[in-house]
Amino acid sequence: MVSPELKTLIQLLTRLPGLGPRSGRRLALHLIQHRQELMKPLAAALNQAADRIVVCRVCGHLDTTNPCSICTDVTRDACHLCVVEGVADLWALERTNFFKGQYHILGGTLSALEGVGPDQLRLPQLLERITHSQIQEVTLALNMTVEGQTTAHYLAEKLKKTGVSVSMLAHGVPFGGELDYLDEGTLSTALKGRRLL
Amino acid sequence: MVSPELKTLIQLLTRLPGLGPRSGRRLALHLIQHRQELMKPLAAALNQAADRIVVCRVCGHLDTTNPCSICTDVTRDACHLCVVEGVADLWALERTNFFKGQYHILGGTLSALEGVGPDQLRLPQLLERITHSQIQEVTLALNMTVEGQTTAHYLAEKLKKTGVSVSMLAHGVPFGGELDYLDEGTLSTALKGRRLL
Repeated sequence: MVSPELKTLIQLLTRLPGLGPRSGRRLALHLIQHRQELMKPLAAALNQAADRIVVCRVCGHLDTTNPCSICTDVTRDACHLCVVEGVADLWALERTNFFKGQYHILGGTLSALEGVGPDQLRLPQLLERITHSQIQEVTLALNMTVEGQTTAHYLAEKLKKTGVSVSMLAHGVPFGGELDYLDEGTLSTALKGRRLL
Repeated sequence: MVSPELKTLIQLLTRLPGLGPRSGRRLALHLIQHRQELMKPLAAALNQAADRIVVCRVCGHLDTTNPCSICTDVTRDACHLCVVEGVADLWALERTNFFKGQYHILGGTLSALEGVGPDQLRLPQLLERITHSQIQEVTLALNMTVEGQTTAHYLAEKLKKTGVSVSMLAHGVPFGGELDYLDEGTLSTALKGRRLL
């Protein structure tokens, strides 16, 4: 009893990550009720982004220019490179407004199980990039997960051979972290990395 | 550092119900990574639904035809009308494949707080429809909420005057319901409505 146009829309919405059939239906109804101010602009934004956004050939970031606006920003420190797993991680670091160097997006983590080797990631490009640039320090900002840290250690080995300094994000108790709620891994890492005051 | 095209897309996605900034960013990245199979079709589906879906002038359902395919379906029982709050409720009832009558969508519930009176709902149309048709029974299938039930009682009073039979959905323990987890209201309703075996 759902018209084919709505059915198609709901099916596509349901394929978005984190959305199930119920939220797909809810979104479709909400969109229909907000056609001019939300539905049509969203369709236009999807089309425009799909047509114009490209992957930066240098760092892997998404932008309408290639190389992207970060790679071509001469005010940024070209000696300091930060390696992240994905675009969302780059955005998260940029929101801190703290890091002023360049980025390199790996596009995932090594995973024997899922058949992701170094060549499936943007790792050859990273090594190539380090060889042909003025990069002096590479900071590995990978997720604190088994996959992220395995990849970080693999990268650290590889990168040290190129002669650059390799650093990692500090690990420990996060802001707002209550010891009682933290896992043992975080706590022991925080203890191991304790600083004398 | 997020390109304007992506920023617009993320902002629009974030305005969808149930989505926050983080899920907006996540969806945008997922869409960019699935341009051909998801992003472009979604944009097309949004445009097509926005252009073609209309509100049925008889029942308030959404369809590309007006009156909708349910209202024009001669195999359905024109004597039995089911009143629901919204389109999602109609869809939920249709999924049961049990009800074979017609529907009427109220478009909400009465709410003194939010200033929703009978005229803000499709209530005049309902009374009009009942007067000029062969409807014999009206089943009120409103949500089991304070607003839904208040509206149902108001409707029941109004409808009885027109001479049709008025019925309500049964209330009680839902399928899979464990008494220990049910609220007192449901349990006392289920006790009150107990059936002799």
